[in-house]
Amino acid sequence: MSSTLSALPPPTAAARDKALRLLERALGPSKVVTDPDACVAFVRDESEAEGALPFAVVRAESSADIMAALAVAREAQVPITPRAAGTGRTGGAVPRSGGIVLATLGMNQIKEIDRREMLAVVEPGVVLGDLHGAVEAEGLFYPPDPNSAESCALGGNVAENAGGPRAFKYGVTREYVLGVEAFLIGGQRVTPGRRTVKGVTGYDVTALLVGSEGTLAVFGDITLRLVPKPPAVMTLLALFSDVRAASVAVANMTGAGLVPRCIELLDSHTLEAMRAAGNDFRQEAGALLLIEVDGEPGETEVQAERVGNACDGALEVLVAQDAGQREKLWSARREMSRAVRKLTRFKLSEDVVVPREQIPELLDRVAQSCDALGVRHLTYGHAGDGNLHVNFLWDHEHEAPTVERAIEQLFRDVIALRGTLSGEHGIGVLKAPYLPLEQSSELIGLQRDIKRVFDPGGLLNPGKIFPGAGHRAC
Amino acid sequence: MSSTLSALPPPTAAARDKALRLLERALGPSKVVTDPDACVAFVRDESEAEGALPFAVVRAESSADIMAALAVAREAQVPITPRAAGTGRTGGAVPRSGGIVLATLGMNQIKEIDRREMLAVVEPGVVLGDLHGAVEAEGLFYPPDPNSAESCALGGNVAENAGGPRAFKYGVTREYVLGVEAFLIGGQRVTPGRRTVKGVTGYDVTALLVGSEGTLAVFGDITLRLVPKPPAVMTLLALFSDVRAASVAVANMTGAGLVPRCIELLDSHTLEAMRAAGNDFRQEAGALLLIEVDGEPGETEVQAERVGNACDGALEVLVAQDAGQREKLWSARREMSRAVRKLTRFKLSEDVVVPREQIPELLDRVAQSCDALGVRHLTYGHAGDGNLHVNFLWDHEHEAPTVERAIEQLFRDVIALRGTLSGEHGIGVLKAPYLPLEQSSELIGLQRDIKRVFDPGGLLNPGKIFPGAGHRAC
Repeated sequence: MSSTLSALPPPTAAARDKALRLLERALGPSKVVTDPDACVAFVRDESEAEGALPFAVVRAESSADIMAALAVAREAQVPITPRAAGTGRTGGAVPRSGGIVLATLGMNQIKEIDRREMLAVVEPGVVLGDLHGAVEAEGLFYPPDPNSAESCALGGNVAENAGGPRAFKYGVTREYVLGVEAFLIGGQRVTPGRRTVKGVTGYDVTALLVGSEGTLAVFGDITLRLVPKPPAVMTLLALFSDVRAASVAVANMTGAGLVPRCIELLDSHTLEAMRAAGNDFRQEAGALLLIEVDGEPGETEVQAERVGNACDGALEVLVAQDAGQREKLWSARREMSRAVRKLTRFKLSEDVVVPREQIPELLDRVAQSCDALGVRHLTYGHAGDGNLHVNFLWDHEHEAPTVERAIEQLFRDVIALRGTLSGEHGIGVLKAPYLPLEQSSELIGLQRDIKRVFDPGGLLNPGKIFPGAGHRAC
Repeated sequence: MSSTLSALPPPTAAARDKALRLLERALGPSKVVTDPDACVAFVRDESEAEGALPFAVVRAESSADIMAALAVAREAQVPITPRAAGTGRTGGAVPRSGGIVLATLGMNQIKEIDRREMLAVVEPGVVLGDLHGAVEAEGLFYPPDPNSAESCALGGNVAENAGGPRAFKYGVTREYVLGVEAFLIGGQRVTPGRRTVKGVTGYDVTALLVGSEGTLAVFGDITLRLVPKPPAVMTLLALFSDVRAASVAVANMTGAGLVPRCIELLDSHTLEAMRAAGNDFRQEAGALLLIEVDGEPGETEVQAERVGNACDGALEVLVAQDAGQREKLWSARREMSRAVRKLTRFKLSEDVVVPREQIPELLDRVAQSCDALGVRHLTYGHAGDGNLHVNFLWDHEHEAPTVERAIEQLFRDVIALRGTLSGEHGIGVLKAPYLPLEQSSELIGLQRDIKRVFDPGGLLNPGKIFPGAGHRAC
């Protein structure tokens, strides 16, 4: 295991001074933030991962600024951590070794929407919700929809390979990135990929960069494939006695060849939290599915009816009759994170995937290990994909090591059930210690070697993905 | 540019003898073919690329055999070229430097079809058509459908990232590969990927291997995502006065949000060739579209009607009323390659992609340069994707350099129209000299460095993809 890939020690004062001098010369003072009170806002993202205070934040306004910052980082040999909106859930944008933060949120232009070729070209700071709105106004659709859609940005979405509920039908970010403008440490620009949907020219470097968590390159322009906007959407909410009954309904749907765009699952503990927050789900309900189908209007109605039939084991099935009712059903789902937050002082949400038929088994195992350890938990997620967010809740710092044991047991159970450690949040800092549970040392070694091709000095976003690179924050 | 990535010189007699001794010891005589009369069958694939005679062909029957052969190649320092069915169109399976051919066509077991999780695990020698049949019997569907479906094998499909007509709706092989068992030079085994659809654990090494044309690793078991089999399919054939009118119809379809599973285009020269082979397309037709829609029965009929409306500029639209008529419409498309072959002694089919709106412009440019050079040509392909197969035809060897000029002009036009050099056939030997037309030296250098991570000695499938690695065979 190479030490160059572990979190670097903070830069020396001499390296820092050199970097600051070079940054000022290349970018001028207006784009370089050095006031610690301002820099401190860039220490964390929306995870529990902790960063070190950067000595400078570059607010890039153009590709040239990205290139300049990456050139300075290499010349002064200081760590540099790219950051778009900083909404990540595993610490991908957290500057583990301080140094420079390269903020691209200011590069927020949608440069092109080509209706005929069905593609968009966006800068890395474009907020996902803005892209959704812009392409839907043109009759087009960009499916990925992480919960943070109104605040996350495309640069981070591509770096983390973001998902969301609609992935069940439409796939995740990787399915929509045709090509990228990518800047390497030192500032070199490469443009893997293409503007056409098909293409097999050389290795798929684009796919390698998608989901590489800012450790291989920093994105400039991103070329995204779009699809036609589905003209009709219908939303159903079904309540079940327990997760096992809900899983039977999901199996009925997939077995019947149905592909709803979303199948969201909430377990009994999540429903309990939502009841505590004022939602009036009936007491005997121990699981909820929120299902959405889309397509042509007639077809969508037929699908909704078939989904309803698949839910014949439900206590109750509600169908939203209009946009207002649809919004009401979703608002509960969106409020969930806040409702859960109210229950507890500390919360850690683990994003895992198991084969969808194994969801009840995984939840049984989580209940068993958490009960044994006395750890509170609740689970919701994307049942169609088997992608669950298992939340661990605690109130006192001294409980953290116990929670840590529950989390490690979760990961072991996920692997035993032939699942994977992360469905859409990435590995970042928080899951790096657990990578060897899923991947062999040979496969990890191969990835370290690929990292070294792009970044021999380990300066770009150090302390991420690889074991030894990070540690748990809780 | 590293010489290790160019086609290696043929192995020395000492290296060959060492390799043969080691192969015999590791695999026994029954799996190692050394008779030159038998080895000669492995010199070529279905392209015009020329290989050198291998001194041994390993007929692998198991993963252990693959590992053994790769270990021998490294120990004896001889080139080794993996090969599944050898149906490639750019020379990917051709042993450019002789050495060992590692044939995996004998590993042809479908090891698992999981209906509930909608996935299949196949060995690399499974013939694509056999997989189609097996999964469709279970109500499932594996969309990629290159023209060679009845003879090509999954190992090659994944290595080349195969496409086919249905890619317009369903995407290409890369969209269906969840994970692979991959063997590196030396025999080391890694298993990137997963059995779940979602997953962002580490770099996407699976995606890097898909389409890497056998230059990074050799595939063992391949885990493929499946989708529900569409219950209904309808096929339409529309005749137009020319390609421009057909392109308007394609634009009408995509503009209306329609996503047929295939939109196949035949140009006037192709129709002429088919008339010469006995098809009775009306004389005034200068372009043909073969369009297929699928889904639930009612929805499919609605789509077919809308496709018909989009073709309002057609001379004639035929709708297949049953499976027999459907088969008749497709048989003409499938016979095409044979019909074209009858016209000429030499034929080179170039697989290129342009933004779909640029198809008429590209064909105008091809006509212009070919007319100026006196080269015969015809084009068909996947109009929805802008993926065209431009065929150059000639009868005398002395015409080859002129054809070569026409081909280079095609590639320059493709790039000028913001397209890509290969949609589904790969770069292999034949297109390697042209890679710099599309990709910068920095991007090519990065890919060479990635190659070196996997195969420092350049022993695995040498002479492919990279410029200087191959040459045109015509």
